[in-house]
Amino acid sequence: MNNKTMVQEIGIKRCTHNPLLKTEDVTPSCENFVVKGIFNCGAAKYKDEYVLLCRVAEAVESKAEDEICFPIVEEKDHESFFRTITIKKSEHPQLCFDDARTITKGRDGNSSVVYLTTLSHLRLARSKDGIHFALDDKPTIMPNANEESWGMEDPRITQIGEVYYINYTAVSPNGAATALITTKDFEKFERKGILFLPENKDVAIFPEKVGEDYYAFNRPVPKGIGTPDIWLSKSPDMIHWGGHKHFYGVSEEGWENGRIGGGAPPVKTEKGWLKIYHAADRNNRYCLGAFLLDGKNPEKILAKSQQPLLEPEMDYEVNGFFGQVVFTCGCIYEAGNLKIYYGAADDSICMAEISLTDIYRHLGIR
Amino acid sequence: MNNKTMVQEIGIKRCTHNPLLKTEDVTPSCENFVVKGIFNCGAAKYKDEYVLLCRVAEAVESKAEDEICFPIVEEKDHESFFRTITIKKSEHPQLCFDDARTITKGRDGNSSVVYLTTLSHLRLARSKDGIHFALDDKPTIMPNANEESWGMEDPRITQIGEVYYINYTAVSPNGAATALITTKDFEKFERKGILFLPENKDVAIFPEKVGEDYYAFNRPVPKGIGTPDIWLSKSPDMIHWGGHKHFYGVSEEGWENGRIGGGAPPVKTEKGWLKIYHAADRNNRYCLGAFLLDGKNPEKILAKSQQPLLEPEMDYEVNGFFGQVVFTCGCIYEAGNLKIYYGAADDSICMAEISLTDIYRHLGIR
Repeated sequence: MNNKTMVQEIGIKRCTHNPLLKTEDVTPSCENFVVKGIFNCGAAKYKDEYVLLCRVAEAVESKAEDEICFPIVEEKDHESFFRTITIKKSEHPQLCFDDARTITKGRDGNSSVVYLTTLSHLRLARSKDGIHFALDDKPTIMPNANEESWGMEDPRITQIGEVYYINYTAVSPNGAATALITTKDFEKFERKGILFLPENKDVAIFPEKVGEDYYAFNRPVPKGIGTPDIWLSKSPDMIHWGGHKHFYGVSEEGWENGRIGGGAPPVKTEKGWLKIYHAADRNNRYCLGAFLLDGKNPEKILAKSQQPLLEPEMDYEVNGFFGQVVFTCGCIYEAGNLKIYYGAADDSICMAEISLTDIYRHLGIR
Repeated sequence: MNNKTMVQEIGIKRCTHNPLLKTEDVTPSCENFVVKGIFNCGAAKYKDEYVLLCRVAEAVESKAEDEICFPIVEEKDHESFFRTITIKKSEHPQLCFDDARTITKGRDGNSSVVYLTTLSHLRLARSKDGIHFALDDKPTIMPNANEESWGMEDPRITQIGEVYYINYTAVSPNGAATALITTKDFEKFERKGILFLPENKDVAIFPEKVGEDYYAFNRPVPKGIGTPDIWLSKSPDMIHWGGHKHFYGVSEEGWENGRIGGGAPPVKTEKGWLKIYHAADRNNRYCLGAFLLDGKNPEKILAKSQQPLLEPEMDYEVNGFFGQVVFTCGCIYEAGNLKIYYGAADDSICMAEISLTDIYRHLGIR
């Protein structure tokens, strides 16, 4: 039985219109910008529309072979603007340009990131059917020049009442932290600051309080001791977080032995909290899996994927800006069916659907 | 002008009884344990006594040259106990034993910590004069088998009203986080869980609310982007923390170019918050410095040490379990005079005194 057969058996169906959004659909933010990807997106229903808040990554085309150019964000008169940095490779023999996503110092694994090759911002797409999306033609949310000067990445949207909580990775030379923005209409956005200190990404906030508290999954990346594991944290007010508990760690071997992260905000089902998460192996091959958690106690795992729910197989998942990646930041659950929106190969936005019945079967529960 | 002259000019005076507490003063927790150090300690006044809550690090002497033994904490019937792990070096060629403090995997800088060579717990010392201390003869606070299974390190004590807030590094295979314990009498202790996710150490909590919030310095260590810098965070209740802001980073060159951390809980003076912190250069030489912060807005730096306030010079600071270290977790301010208790060379506990006038002079303010 090959992987493809297995995925078919799981009952997950990729949308025949995949990719739903791709680099060609994106109007660059500036004349000299090149769109490198539109991928990891938060998903929500707003009024009668599906909305995706998409990560758009842009670069600046370099004019000479020895040059690398990339944008950052600066500020003047309280207004953010893009600025281009140019580095002559030959003048910086200590820098490494091997990873498509980063420029690092030090080659032997003890490397530190000194620049990102692309700058990401957030851009809104709207749809009546959840498949055909119209994308804003400029940044919907522009990074600020402080904790976001290297970009805003991987947004998630959690709706609670009429407020949409948008958490995202705020990247700057000080690290990759998780910050929060709220909106009620996807037109006016309010910044709420940093929720989780660097290095912490892949935050997924629950869509309601459980008991007295808001809950969020998060994924710290410690430098010394520990691996990139999922933690579960609580908050009385969505701003201040505590009660941190280690939730689930990377495995010794297999598809989850590199890193594991929050994925999409959990969905409430009659059997408990359903959570689609991502895991990567040590070769940076990213797959999706599912957790089912106790409805009253999200620390308690009722079931978990033994094999990937979705793995990179299609050309648009295997090849791209950073290949071998399926990565979700948002699902929409309607009428027994889960739409999983996912970034493919850090390049395009795709969708796959699976019925709750099939997920339960995949999880070995009925 | 050599360094020693400079320190004398600063007006800081080491206690003539240094070290105040040393390994020989510590009764090992178990028969087969060897005390490797009593160092970084929180400091407070309780009733008419000075109390130090000390980090005691213990190892297990190995019986064969090829062996390395060390303790960890496990649990049975809700009771924590010490267990000894033995590793035959020759059977683990992938492990590195070069650092006295850790056993790591991978040699080229891309190393991860797989064990600590010592296990630390917290032990209380009491004194009438702040110089001569009587130390408990067994662990005052024993690590638990969960987030502290690799030990409790570097406690700080912040008194607010009649409650003493003890924060410390909780170390386990899941990382080095910061946890909180409260006490009113240094006899009954209440665990409050993890305040800051891994990797985050060097937390220093302010001794009162500033405006509406509690404040704490903390020092996340991101793996990818960023350096080990000081951040400032807020809390409404001492348990949930948010409003995180980057406070001060490592320097490009000089005595602060490796890492910088919270040091002792800040002290309120008539000119603002006085904070003794530590900084290390890339050779792991740890010094102490001072910040003066606006009394109503701790984010605002009024003055900062240009040169170390205290640096490793004495034999007990230069040589020890991990040499070239002066590291404070607690100061006591009385009658215009600051007693700085500090760990020397990860080995012993020392004290140095300086008048507020001399600190102001060192900071270039009057």
